[in-house]
Amino acid sequence: MIKHFSIDDISSADKDFRRDLINSLTGYKSLHLMGTINKDGMSNLAPFSQVFHVGANPPLLGILFRPHTVERHTLENILESRFFTLNHVTSDFYKQAHQCSARWQQSEFEATGLEEIYLDAFIAPYVKISPLKIGCILADKIELSINDTILIIGGIQHVYLEETAVNPSGFVNMEKLGTVAVTGLDEYHTARRLARLSYAKPGQPVREIKE
Amino acid sequence: MIKHFSIDDISSADKDFRRDLINSLTGYKSLHLMGTINKDGMSNLAPFSQVFHVGANPPLLGILFRPHTVERHTLENILESRFFTLNHVTSDFYKQAHQCSARWQQSEFEATGLEEIYLDAFIAPYVKISPLKIGCILADKIELSINDTILIIGGIQHVYLEETAVNPSGFVNMEKLGTVAVTGLDEYHTARRLARLSYAKPGQPVREIKE
Repeated sequence: MIKHFSIDDISSADKDFRRDLINSLTGYKSLHLMGTINKDGMSNLAPFSQVFHVGANPPLLGILFRPHTVERHTLENILESRFFTLNHVTSDFYKQAHQCSARWQQSEFEATGLEEIYLDAFIAPYVKISPLKIGCILADKIELSINDTILIIGGIQHVYLEETAVNPSGFVNMEKLGTVAVTGLDEYHTARRLARLSYAKPGQPVREIKE
Repeated sequence: MIKHFSIDDISSADKDFRRDLINSLTGYKSLHLMGTINKDGMSNLAPFSQVFHVGANPPLLGILFRPHTVERHTLENILESRFFTLNHVTSDFYKQAHQCSARWQQSEFEATGLEEIYLDAFIAPYVKISPLKIGCILADKIELSINDTILIIGGIQHVYLEETAVNPSGFVNMEKLGTVAVTGLDEYHTARRLARLSYAKPGQPVREIKE
């Protein structure tokens, strides 16, 4: 049976129901821990699932910040220091990553036991255990007037990852890294590869890439 | 062994290597087929993996359009008609979804054999076989001056999904739907649930939600 929700059904639904339903619609999302530091040297670590590719040359990422949430420390730190890190989360520490979303008074690194590490004189902290770490500089900040969300564009400055997970073409094998995906606000998954598919051309069948 | 790529390494890398590496960094992404129609009544269907949650009230999604790509028909159709659909892709038809990225002269529905369907007098076509269909109206268009990408904000007007996949709290079970995730440009995955985790609070252990 197919269930239909119209905009009127959605608008008049219970607030929590609407939040969970609408947050589910975008399917699987990457999960990143974002590391920042404030001017007093206090580090901060927060989970983000709204991280997306903006461009390869120059290499750019986008992160959407919801207004009035616990993530604001992260945003304040980025605007102040101009630097942040993104760290992939694996099944080994996804529960600690989830705990970073609580309203801690101290640094989330300290609170959750995730160890911080500083690399190549970069000011923002990385998560030591993470198998894929990205160091970014603030490249742009765009306010979405439609609902006061803020889009931060990060310029990628550094990438650190397990060498065995990068193949010669540049493609990174997420299953080798052990990266988790998130659905909705709080469900976590690992993945099972179906296939890599060849570049699509009209009238030609799609091939599976064995690499 | 950890491999380090600095911005200089990335900038001087081979173009294809850089594209694959940078497109991999955002981890697992949702895969949606976007259905549109032009003023002559010709339908169009294109795969998108840059679809993200913007807000629940009003319900809003964002889709990032790269400049100068095959996706432009989709963008032109949205700007012209103001309506589009997003359709989750399952392992049953992900190869046809991938084929929609080829430069077809005819409608991708016709070219790939994916059947189109029109629901509730909505002008844009849905993918009949898709277990989660979203009908959107163009709500905003934002140009990211940093690299000429275009962010389209869609206002959610309709959601159709398998009733058994929505639980009473509003959360949608992606594994029940069979939705696939994509990594990089061309690798597809299904998922294996680790757990749903309770709302995080300082000093309290995270619980697994059994729902």
